[in-house]
Amino acid sequence: MNQFYVPRSEISDTTIRVSGQEAHHILHVMRYAVGDEITVTDGIGGRYQAEIQKVWKDRLEARIIRYDRQPESGIRTLVIAFGAIKHRPRLEMAVEKAVELGATEIVIFRSRYTERSSIRLDRLEGMAISAMKQSLRTILPAVRLLNSLDEVLRQYSDLEIVIADENSTRKAGIPPEIRSRRRVLLLVGPEGGFSDDEYKLAENMGAVSISLGTGRLRTETAVIALLAQFLRN
Amino acid sequence: MNQFYVPRSEISDTTIRVSGQEAHHILHVMRYAVGDEITVTDGIGGRYQAEIQKVWKDRLEARIIRYDRQPESGIRTLVIAFGAIKHRPRLEMAVEKAVELGATEIVIFRSRYTERSSIRLDRLEGMAISAMKQSLRTILPAVRLLNSLDEVLRQYSDLEIVIADENSTRKAGIPPEIRSRRRVLLLVGPEGGFSDDEYKLAENMGAVSISLGTGRLRTETAVIALLAQFLRN
Repeated sequence: MNQFYVPRSEISDTTIRVSGQEAHHILHVMRYAVGDEITVTDGIGGRYQAEIQKVWKDRLEARIIRYDRQPESGIRTLVIAFGAIKHRPRLEMAVEKAVELGATEIVIFRSRYTERSSIRLDRLEGMAISAMKQSLRTILPAVRLLNSLDEVLRQYSDLEIVIADENSTRKAGIPPEIRSRRRVLLLVGPEGGFSDDEYKLAENMGAVSISLGTGRLRTETAVIALLAQFLRN
Repeated sequence: MNQFYVPRSEISDTTIRVSGQEAHHILHVMRYAVGDEITVTDGIGGRYQAEIQKVWKDRLEARIIRYDRQPESGIRTLVIAFGAIKHRPRLEMAVEKAVELGATEIVIFRSRYTERSSIRLDRLEGMAISAMKQSLRTILPAVRLLNSLDEVLRQYSDLEIVIADENSTRKAGIPPEIRSRRRVLLLVGPEGGFSDDEYKLAENMGAVSISLGTGRLRTETAVIALLAQFLRN
């Protein structure tokens, strides 16, 4: 099954307008034509089944046959925030896997070692779209870049905070009462880990610290392993 | 902290002999000299602290100051077996992350779509060594290539089997009684998933099927997410 992405602004009650890369993919890569059915998500919880009705060279229109929409109350808030990763393939992997594993928002925060120029947000957003389509999810997480852990904590102060702590003496894994929370901010440190001050900052905001076992995990591995604890049907 | 890898055959009761790439790294990249201390693992559960005593151009000897060895009875067997991944960076990622997350053996099995030439075992073994050193683990998992799921099941028939099932109707996550098992084979299907026959084959061997949530996960993501359920301190 293929799933395409069309922003909500291009979707009316009856019709979906597709242009740009998605239209190119549908018409010239998949070679779909009038009468064929496509599956589309709007990235905000909706999934549509639609029949292609009109085709131009670089765009198309499809008639909505049916749609499913998750009620907003049913959508969990699962924000993953992690320290910037220098190595670009690893940073991109973290973003791709975060989308696959159901993150609803992805926040990368800088430490003093991060060069401003090194992170291309547009590329990461493109990867998030691909990963959403591939994994058949219907929520496109925003990818955001913040300047410090402090800024992350201030902006998400209404969420319950879970922090992956390398030095935690707790048993590895997440207690069920934390796993079942509905509005969560997951924090993973930068390479080299959080400083003591950063841990304290998070703890003062009520963060629960958890362990990801004995190995020293790379940032992207910790991101994936932590999100994997929150998988849901 | 840096950790180096030296096979057990090069380690006596008192002395560690280092040659090849590791010696090059210690002497010419890290620029360690006589009198400096190094941390070495033998990849079979031992970690050594040693002082460099003699140095040549391309090798060195170090005197063991102390060592820790996990008793064999304390080492869990955690074999991860997954269908071959065509895209090489994704295959390599799966191997790297499996080592980081504590797999003790990595098995890649072919499906009829796998080309024999496409998997370079020597490269994957090199990645496993790097990942073990990086993550400060002391077990170097063997990386093996088998011809089918059937062959995997026959060779590991003495382990308890957990299979990641895309169509499972169970609650996502792993029940504690499975999580705490000591000798486990984890199975992840190839791209496109297991066939019904393959599921049956595994079930007939007593496999427990578990869910990794609602998203369609790539093979390497399922490998990482499944192993993340078995993290331990």
